[in-house]
Amino acid sequence: MNNNDWRQRLYVMVFQADTPAGRRFDTTLLLIILCSLVVVILDSIDSIHRDYANLLAYIEWGFTFVFAVEYGLRLYCSPKPLRYAFSFYGLVDLLAIVPGILAIYYSDAQYLLIIRIIRMLRIFRVLKLAPYLSQANYLLSALRGSKQKIIVFLVSVSTLVTVFGTLMYVVEGPENGFTSIPVSIYWAIVTLTTVGFGDIVPKTPFGQIISAMVMITGYSIIAVPTGIFTAELANAMRGEQLKHPCPTCKKERHEPSAAFCSRCGNALFTKNA
Amino acid sequence: MNNNDWRQRLYVMVFQADTPAGRRFDTTLLLIILCSLVVVILDSIDSIHRDYANLLAYIEWGFTFVFAVEYGLRLYCSPKPLRYAFSFYGLVDLLAIVPGILAIYYSDAQYLLIIRIIRMLRIFRVLKLAPYLSQANYLLSALRGSKQKIIVFLVSVSTLVTVFGTLMYVVEGPENGFTSIPVSIYWAIVTLTTVGFGDIVPKTPFGQIISAMVMITGYSIIAVPTGIFTAELANAMRGEQLKHPCPTCKKERHEPSAAFCSRCGNALFTKNA
Amino acid sequence: MNNNDWRQRLYVMVFQADTPAGRRFDTTLLLIILCSLVVVILDSIDSIHRDYANLLAYIEWGFTFVFAVEYGLRLYCSPKPLRYAFSFYGLVDLLAIVPGILAIYYSDAQYLLIIRIIRMLRIFRVLKLAPYLSQANYLLSALRGSKQKIIVFLVSVSTLVTVFGTLMYVVEGPENGFTSIPVSIYWAIVTLTTVGFGDIVPKTPFGQIISAMVMITGYSIIAVPTGIFTAELANAMRGEQLKHPCPTCKKERHEPSAAFCSRCGNALFTKNA
Amino acid sequence: MNNNDWRQRLYVMVFQADTPAGRRFDTTLLLIILCSLVVVILDSIDSIHRDYANLLAYIEWGFTFVFAVEYGLRLYCSPKPLRYAFSFYGLVDLLAIVPGILAIYYSDAQYLLIIRIIRMLRIFRVLKLAPYLSQANYLLSALRGSKQKIIVFLVSVSTLVTVFGTLMYVVEGPENGFTSIPVSIYWAIVTLTTVGFGDIVPKTPFGQIISAMVMITGYSIIAVPTGIFTAELANAMRGEQLKHPCPTCKKERHEPSAAFCSRCGNALFTKNA
Repeated sequence: MNNNDWRQRLYVMVFQADTPAGRRFDTTLLLIILCSLVVVILDSIDSIHRDYANLLAYIEWGFTFVFAVEYGLRLYCSPKPLRYAFSFYGLVDLLAIVPGILAIYYSDAQYLLIIRIIRMLRIFRVLKLAPYLSQANYLLSALRGSKQKIIVFLVSVSTLVTVFGTLMYVVEGPENGFTSIPVSIYWAIVTLTTVGFGDIVPKTPFGQIISAMVMITGYSIIAVPTGIFTAELANAMRGEQLKHPCPTCKKERHEPSAAFCSRCGNALFTKNA
Repeated sequence: MNNNDWRQRLYVMVFQADTPAGRRFDTTLLLIILCSLVVVILDSIDSIHRDYANLLAYIEWGFTFVFAVEYGLRLYCSPKPLRYAFSFYGLVDLLAIVPGILAIYYSDAQYLLIIRIIRMLRIFRVLKLAPYLSQANYLLSALRGSKQKIIVFLVSVSTLVTVFGTLMYVVEGPENGFTSIPVSIYWAIVTLTTVGFGDIVPKTPFGQIISAMVMITGYSIIAVPTGIFTAELANAMRGEQLKHPCPTCKKERHEPSAAFCSRCGNALFTKNA
Repeated sequence: MNNNDWRQRLYVMVFQADTPAGRRFDTTLLLIILCSLVVVILDSIDSIHRDYANLLAYIEWGFTFVFAVEYGLRLYCSPKPLRYAFSFYGLVDLLAIVPGILAIYYSDAQYLLIIRIIRMLRIFRVLKLAPYLSQANYLLSALRGSKQKIIVFLVSVSTLVTVFGTLMYVVEGPENGFTSIPVSIYWAIVTLTTVGFGDIVPKTPFGQIISAMVMITGYSIIAVPTGIFTAELANAMRGEQLKHPCPTCKKERHEPSAAFCSRCGNALFTKNA
Repeated sequence: MNNNDWRQRLYVMVFQADTPAGRRFDTTLLLIILCSLVVVILDSIDSIHRDYANLLAYIEWGFTFVFAVEYGLRLYCSPKPLRYAFSFYGLVDLLAIVPGILAIYYSDAQYLLIIRIIRMLRIFRVLKLAPYLSQANYLLSALRGSKQKIIVFLVSVSTLVTVFGTLMYVVEGPENGFTSIPVSIYWAIVTLTTVGFGDIVPKTPFGQIISAMVMITGYSIIAVPTGIFTAELANAMRGEQLKHPCPTCKKERHEPSAAFCSRCGNALFTKNA
């Protein structure tokens, strides 16, 4: 086995997931990313940071080293290293290492956390290899089919919250917590989506009447995204037409229970004598 | 090109959206309205108002001037100016200018804000020209199809919140925040729609039992608007089939491009002899 | 026109809604009941009660008088007065008067309010006459069709909130607001139904993990009542089979697009030669 | 009637629910378990515990005795006692007794409560005998059919709350209540599921913008579990048709009582010659 052959096999293991080795590699990588995320999350807890800051930093450096080695391997075995390096995943892979190396010189960990979270995207990358992805594609295609309807819905909701927010700002005013129109719009979103934090609440009777309208609106129009998605999904699940070429005109697809070709009018199936 | 011809072309650009110029005009107008709204919204923020009140006022005057010119153009190029002036959109266009002019003499901006928000309606008017509107019509027809069911639903919900509100007023009473029946009805709406601000909460055990009933009711009957809308939408999406009763067997729906009935095999349309 | 004939016509007007007079009578009655309810609701507002208590009391006495006259009319014109008096609606009609008369002697209005709310039921009775009721029947039949599924769902939810409530009582304990198991179950209902008042919130990390589980459960299982109702409603809306008796065996209902009788195998429609 | 015969009849009554006696036994047992749970719940209320602690303890001992006798009966009449004792239900039955007996020696009732709640599982076991279970199976099969989609959905939600939680921790920081990433993730779950306790709320403008995005996301993606479940349930309800491919044209679904294919008119089942 020469060097090129080894590189080829490494490429299959690192970049593809059709072989057992490739699957094992990806699963291991997913686990390491998850561990790395858990360490970042734990480090944000004050009591843990006080006691184990150094230990967690060492572990995080370890993960950075592992990711750096992995990045090197990918560059080495890829047939077109530059193309990989400037692809989306290549950049994400690089961004998973850089903050860890920077953290050695600047301990300003706070802002590096945001960059490190991009590693999360790798979960999707690893999942692509899992049997679940056909289902995800299924859901995404249902979402894509209703993209336009969703945009109309979001525009309507944006208009609603702006109108209701401004109305509440005028009715309730800064003395009741509605300090500005943006804050009132934020309140309208909190109310329309039925979240209802309760940090800002209407106090005047008229404000409470408007609030009731916002709530009932929000409670009712949740039917819209649900309805769109359900109808689209049911459509996708049903959409199996009869695939039986008409013996006369060869039209291939027909209504599920068609007996005669809807194009030429001849029987699709011969009747037993 | 004479004056009348120019007016005709202006009319097409200003009032219609089938030409590239008309589309560009409407898009620009939409952007200006959005900017004008952003200025109103920004002006409501206390810290910005303190520092930039004058600047924002000048910008708003600029927008008022632009809208006034646009209103004049519409009056000028419309074949029936009076009919436009008293149409819904004509009045909205006028209302978009008046507060800006009034604001020069009276700086009582607070109350003018409500009138200015009516400009938002223009977003829908501009969207009518966008390809999204067929989708909006689609959603609206689904909503119209279930209008009666929605009225029955809203009457039931109104009855429910009145009964539960009164019950809570009697059970909890003013000492626990349920100061009057209207406030208790407001609380019932907040709870039934699962918003749950938490500004008014039941404190007695019996009040908490009634609250639990309200919540479970609200959690369950959200199925009603969702179910209505989904069933109506699924119906509308299925309804894209050819609606032409077969002259022989009366089967009503066929594939969009069917020439023969898929049930009895007879021609759907008679040939001209 | 003799006395009996007059009584007969009064009966038709008061008890039925097929004639214009009957419809007008019921609409007027609905309006009076609504006004009476509004008076009760207004009287509960402290500032109004202080200033207009006497006026509102007089108005309420007027309504009581009107309802008493109406009750007398119903007794007079009913062919079987006793049967009416002891029917559900007869008792509700009586209960709409009694508290008003009692209020003359005892001004303990607080507790009478609950009884007066029963008048609300008359809204449904009046609505029965409106064209909306076929829609209400439609919704109710969809709900009845899924009664068993709803019971299973409610039992599961009850079990869930009991288990989660007890768990939270043990984990968080009285020091964090979870003062007893019933209060913790109330909290679990507030959380599972996504209401989230915020009067009781988990404070320990383990309590927050359980809360997150309760929330995600509640967020997900809302699909169950929605799914049940939607599927049932879609079924009810679709359920239009082909009503065309088979010319050979007379089987009356077939699949919507059947070409041959599924019982005897003969063609349902003759083909044009 | 000999001893073995009596044991056999006892077995049928205790373990099966097809006979009237078996059904009565199971219903009684369910009621006793419910009473036992009510006693545990009541005992957790401070004011009741202070006054009736002894009485409730005696009652609970009584229930423990009843369950012990029942456990003995089950062991006695079971044809394979060891197999029962180590089955899931056998262990649950034992766990329903042990804490009660332990409570006599150690009054540390607090921790025993968790174990006692396992008795709740018996509700499902008893319900298995009720006519409702076919419905529960129905719902469960709909859930099982969409298991993969639900996993994809839960993974996406987990990723979303981690990303949004970390973002909010960085944006808002410990001074605004977002004390650590786990707490911020907890807040993201509270917000995404539209529960909205309000114990932690965003205070910076940027934090409120991110919150608005979380809320609108949560408000929209509730469509996903609902859509999945509804489509799956509608599929299951439609699926009550006869699934028998027509031997001639292969049409797969027919009316439940069809004898001939409704598409090609050929017999669905061959006659024995």
